Amino acid sequence: MADSLLRPHRADDALRSVSITPCFTLAPLASVLIECGHTRVMCTCSAEDRVPPFRLDSGGGWLTAEYSMLPGATPHRTRRGVSRGKLDGRSTEIQRLIGRSLRAGFDLDAIGPRTLTVDCDVLQADGGTRTAAITGGYVAARLALERLVALGDASSDAFLAPVAAISVGIVDGRPRLDLDYPLDSNAEVDMNVVMTTAGRLIEVQGTGEKGTFGRDELNRLLDLADKGVASLAEAQQSAIRAGLEKRPRP
Amino acid sequence: MADSLLRPHRADDALRSVSITPCFTLAPLASVLIECGHTRVMCTCSAEDRVPPFRLDSGGGWLTAEYSMLPGATPHRTRRGVSRGKLDGRSTEIQRLIGRSLRAGFDLDAIGPRTLTVDCDVLQADGGTRTAAITGGYVAARLALERLVALGDASSDAFLAPVAAISVGIVDGRPRLDLDYPLDSNAEVDMNVVMTTAGRLIEVQGTGEKGTFGRDELNRLLDLADKGVASLAEAQQSAIRAGLEKRPRP
Amino acid sequence: MADSLLRPHRADDALRSVSITPCFTLAPLASVLIECGHTRVMCTCSAEDRVPPFRLDSGGGWLTAEYSMLPGATPHRTRRGVSRGKLDGRSTEIQRLIGRSLRAGFDLDAIGPRTLTVDCDVLQADGGTRTAAITGGYVAARLALERLVALGDASSDAFLAPVAAISVGIVDGRPRLDLDYPLDSNAEVDMNVVMTTAGRLIEVQGTGEKGTFGRDELNRLLDLADKGVASLAEAQQSAIRAGLEKRPRP
Amino acid sequence: MADSLLRPHRADDALRSVSITPCFTLAPLASVLIECGHTRVMCTCSAEDRVPPFRLDSGGGWLTAEYSMLPGATPHRTRRGVSRGKLDGRSTEIQRLIGRSLRAGFDLDAIGPRTLTVDCDVLQADGGTRTAAITGGYVAARLALERLVALGDASSDAFLAPVAAISVGIVDGRPRLDLDYPLDSNAEVDMNVVMTTAGRLIEVQGTGEKGTFGRDELNRLLDLADKGVASLAEAQQSAIRAGLEKRPRP
Amino acid sequence: MADSLLRPHRADDALRSVSITPCFTLAPLASVLIECGHTRVMCTCSAEDRVPPFRLDSGGGWLTAEYSMLPGATPHRTRRGVSRGKLDGRSTEIQRLIGRSLRAGFDLDAIGPRTLTVDCDVLQADGGTRTAAITGGYVAARLALERLVALGDASSDAFLAPVAAISVGIVDGRPRLDLDYPLDSNAEVDMNVVMTTAGRLIEVQGTGEKGTFGRDELNRLLDLADKGVASLAEAQQSAIRAGLEKRPRP
Amino acid sequence: MADSLLRPHRADDALRSVSITPCFTLAPLASVLIECGHTRVMCTCSAEDRVPPFRLDSGGGWLTAEYSMLPGATPHRTRRGVSRGKLDGRSTEIQRLIGRSLRAGFDLDAIGPRTLTVDCDVLQADGGTRTAAITGGYVAARLALERLVALGDASSDAFLAPVAAISVGIVDGRPRLDLDYPLDSNAEVDMNVVMTTAGRLIEVQGTGEKGTFGRDELNRLLDLADKGVASLAEAQQSAIRAGLEKRPRP
Repeated sequence: MADSLLRPHRADDALRSVSITPCFTLAPLASVLIECGHTRVMCTCSAEDRVPPFRLDSGGGWLTAEYSMLPGATPHRTRRGVSRGKLDGRSTEIQRLIGRSLRAGFDLDAIGPRTLTVDCDVLQADGGTRTAAITGGYVAARLALERLVALGDASSDAFLAPVAAISVGIVDGRPRLDLDYPLDSNAEVDMNVVMTTAGRLIEVQGTGEKGTFGRDELNRLLDLADKGVASLAEAQQSAIRAGLEKRPRP
Repeated sequence: MADSLLRPHRADDALRSVSITPCFTLAPLASVLIECGHTRVMCTCSAEDRVPPFRLDSGGGWLTAEYSMLPGATPHRTRRGVSRGKLDGRSTEIQRLIGRSLRAGFDLDAIGPRTLTVDCDVLQADGGTRTAAITGGYVAARLALERLVALGDASSDAFLAPVAAISVGIVDGRPRLDLDYPLDSNAEVDMNVVMTTAGRLIEVQGTGEKGTFGRDELNRLLDLADKGVASLAEAQQSAIRAGLEKRPRP
Repeated sequence: MADSLLRPHRADDALRSVSITPCFTLAPLASVLIECGHTRVMCTCSAEDRVPPFRLDSGGGWLTAEYSMLPGATPHRTRRGVSRGKLDGRSTEIQRLIGRSLRAGFDLDAIGPRTLTVDCDVLQADGGTRTAAITGGYVAARLALERLVALGDASSDAFLAPVAAISVGIVDGRPRLDLDYPLDSNAEVDMNVVMTTAGRLIEVQGTGEKGTFGRDELNRLLDLADKGVASLAEAQQSAIRAGLEKRPRP
Repeated sequence: MADSLLRPHRADDALRSVSITPCFTLAPLASVLIECGHTRVMCTCSAEDRVPPFRLDSGGGWLTAEYSMLPGATPHRTRRGVSRGKLDGRSTEIQRLIGRSLRAGFDLDAIGPRTLTVDCDVLQADGGTRTAAITGGYVAARLALERLVALGDASSDAFLAPVAAISVGIVDGRPRLDLDYPLDSNAEVDMNVVMTTAGRLIEVQGTGEKGTFGRDELNRLLDLADKGVASLAEAQQSAIRAGLEKRPRP
Repeated sequence: MADSLLRPHRADDALRSVSITPCFTLAPLASVLIECGHTRVMCTCSAEDRVPPFRLDSGGGWLTAEYSMLPGATPHRTRRGVSRGKLDGRSTEIQRLIGRSLRAGFDLDAIGPRTLTVDCDVLQADGGTRTAAITGGYVAARLALERLVALGDASSDAFLAPVAAISVGIVDGRPRLDLDYPLDSNAEVDMNVVMTTAGRLIEVQGTGEKGTFGRDELNRLLDLADKGVASLAEAQQSAIRAGLEKRPRP
Repeated sequence: MADSLLRPHRADDALRSVSITPCFTLAPLASVLIECGHTRVMCTCSAEDRVPPFRLDSGGGWLTAEYSMLPGATPHRTRRGVSRGKLDGRSTEIQRLIGRSLRAGFDLDAIGPRTLTVDCDVLQADGGTRTAAITGGYVAARLALERLVALGDASSDAFLAPVAAISVGIVDGRPRLDLDYPLDSNAEVDMNVVMTTAGRLIEVQGTGEKGTFGRDELNRLLDLADKGVASLAEAQQSAIRAGLEKRPRP
């Protein structure tokens, strides 16, 4: 089955079109659909009144994430993790990254004795699903916590600097921002950068997929990531405002 | 977390509002979003060039289905199957039902030596997810096969009578059509009916959840199901027409 | 290995010969061997002093069932579930049906704070194993509860109407009662009917295996099921009486 | 639940009453019920036209065994292996022992390119289930092979000396033959002995459960085992003769 | 990949060279490397402040063992248990044997309310890994307990007679002591003998791998085992003394 | 159990003492023990004559890695992956990193149609196990390939620039090289850097464990890593030379 997705031309330092829809569904505490080009991830946030053992004595809470690619998200169907009996290595690695990244955006001592779970389910995959999950997942977790704050169940001290993420890479020798699937498949170097929207680094994961890279290339990629995260920060702010209006605090 | 979904008043013999969006995503062969009230199921259909062992000598193909509830589909988060290491009994039973039901809508000897997989992922659950999955899954499988027929990869003889499904039940002593979650939770009798849109039965699964039921009650429930399936058939036809227009045959 | 079982001729509305042996083994609380033609299922009932979480506050108990086909029960050996690491879909579906059906026969609020487990292990399979398991399983659960009542550990209010089950189907265009393996393999329509022996329906599961069926055919099949269940009810009563005599209440 | 099994008094060097019923079921190639006191094991033998990789080049076949305790075989219900997702250590060890022991009874080069599987399912357990499984399993495998020989599918050279097994132990300081559950639970030394009925040893597994043992005690236990196996050999011969008569070679 | 290990000539009744290194690593409570020819097993002993349910009321503790072959321990790589999702039958059987054997060396009522776990990881395998694990595991458990006794956390009454184990067998018709991999592969009879160093038997597991064996042969093998265990006992004593000096009691 | 490891004082930019022992065991194709302070990892390399599906048409081979912590490697025992039925997320992530990193050191098209597996088993853990596994794993893979080249089974074109890895981090506000366990536990920023010994980057994974970090801090950490890798490169070269001498090419 050939890839049937159309992708408009883009400058090397341009993001794909980004859209963050708050209140995408209504059952969970918060639900966001993030679209980055054809990549589409549904991020929901649920709260449970329990904390993991290592947080029991803290008085505070915990935030964790799960990531899953729906079988029909790709032109060739992906087998479900449950059919293989276990989560594949790639998904494990991604959901650990999402969890670590989102935890940097909140003061977990101020969210009350609960666990927030951010579920990131990829409805359609065209590259950059893990960074879209972080960027959208932040909005879902934020809207969920805003509701808990409004209910008096969490403190507004919980909000640290917002968190967003973007992929960058070197393709055909050129540094590129926001890799879609064809770019990602051909990248010599592939890097995911998680930052606060204030410009501080949270996580940098760069890999020479086809060869190695030097310090100068690393720095040019980080410059691109700075630019991308600044744009994502604006999209997040709009979505948070829209979400707070669309679903008035209870 | 209290249930925050609003549900307009409905007559005992009225369906919830139904919407079937074809081409919901573009990566898979076909993709449909079906909404029945707040219940929302994404149904994608993928084709693979292999058949199960028992169909090897037939020259024909196979159709199978998988069903999964996303963790954030319900007010209280549902654990993923992969976290438990295996599919839960309820999901197993449902996906076997969906597969059997959809196979009745197609002549598998005419679809070529391939397996069609219909993935039904519940984005939001408010009762009737299995019947929505069958009704929407039929449209996804149909649109997928229409594309294969247009490509000359399958025969138009493959299309038998369309298939749809609806739940009915007895709630507070009254026969009701299309049970949402609150109705389903209180039902004395719960029945899922799968039919061809020509009015023939494919599968009847009736259970006395709280007590037993008589033959007269069974018949009244089947009358309601007839009525519901007739309406669903119209929604399916519109969606199939729209899908064929939206995504011209390759 | 060809099927080497001999099957005498039978009228379309005749049951196979039925035999229910109480006290088949002595280790568990109750043990029954049910034979329907060549189909042979050992049903044992055990009690444990625990209840599932959702019954904790009820003061009452719970009843659950497990179903398994021994590897040597069929001419071609069946792999054990444990070799595959999980229960197959068919067994999952069947044991959920058995549990639901047997729970309809008892008032679980009156059995005390315990869980009864009815284990249905198929020693030889020739069609109708799930309905035999329900019919025999009822006797095992009943005899187990009679012992608990005699010991003062449960209330005799626990006994609701007895429960039995039978398969019916359309084979070569003719409605047939009690499908053995060759009939089942050739059935156009296959239906399992669980009833109280007072004639009320508990569960109806009808499937068009090869084509669809109409309301009239459904009704003729239910008539046959009525007749079959009436005969099974007599066999159950004899076995219960014999069981109470054979193993005097402690 | 107290143990409700009655056990008649027995001399230290006496076997429990033994009964081996051939043709217990008819679906598999061969089926035997062995009863040693209250211990009851159903042994079936199935043949499949495949051999494990390490026997592919041999031209011959393979014999393997599986062992399982039904949940209702004991006064306190045993959880199924499939519920735990894997076979427990005890069952793994036992089925490896049964397989090794039975392979000593046949020339696997003479059974044709097939795998014989002997399934030993314990219907009721009162000590000595593994040795009963070996003794009964030999009869099942023998009757299965006799049928294959009669069909010309295997050579009568396949039959080496028959194999039987018995448990012995030291209880309250006294060497005892054939330990039932109460004896086994109190044994200081517990030994399983597998022998050809010609008196040669195949496997000796002796364990000091509560303390150690000397060479002299080992020898007295082996003397008892000799005596027990001689009696079991007679029961096996009768059962084989009866089985060959009951189910004439095809 | 051919076997590249050199093995010097040995008399039929001679052990391979044995070396037991105490304090091989320093992180766990005790750690021993045992080398028997090319076979090399790292045995560590850890203590945890919990006991299994069946020991809760005893006031005493428990000792258990785990056994694993590292993938690179053999010329052909062995797959890890975790890749197959479960422990293989052979490892299960071996670690149960190690646990039973080591428990015979200690009075578990005197070790305090804790569980000692002896992990036996095979760094290089050349036959006799299970007996090396028992012999080395005893030293690890002993040194661990000596530290607990010195800390006043366990009683010196815990030490019963030391435990060691050796393999013997019949190869080319000759009784042999301490089978390395080539001998083991060709053995007609293979026996593992676990003894106290005072000469009492704890466990005897003899198997006729290729044919059967008589009582006389059994006795000659046990004589060889006696001899081997006596030498191992000396190596254990030296290692224990060295271990107590090397890592002074805290 | 308190941590009983002694750690000498170290400058902020100093490595722990490093030792790489080639030919640590002799069974596998190559085997290396790497020690970095108290961290001790056994790295073995095995070759199998198969390649994964996606390399089938390449004519070349594949290299993969597995990582495991032995239970006794830490003061508190770690449960085995096989006991939990699956590999934990951390180990999955680490072994994927090791595999990617080592593949950068070899031209897989020149190693012949085989899979090299590098097994990294941690005998003792005191921080930096993943980078030690990469540094030692490179030597194991290199020595294995040198043997295959000598045998004419692989081409010497397979050797690209050697690969080594080191951890760096910010602890108490100070950039530090080579974090041991106490440093790692207290690090604000933790980074693993994989490089060729020619100074090019292969993988950079930096995480703000307790807060975020700026570009300047990133650069100071990379300077430290450069320095560390240069020292490791020398240790690798010595070990490779020693390995080639110790075990002459066949």
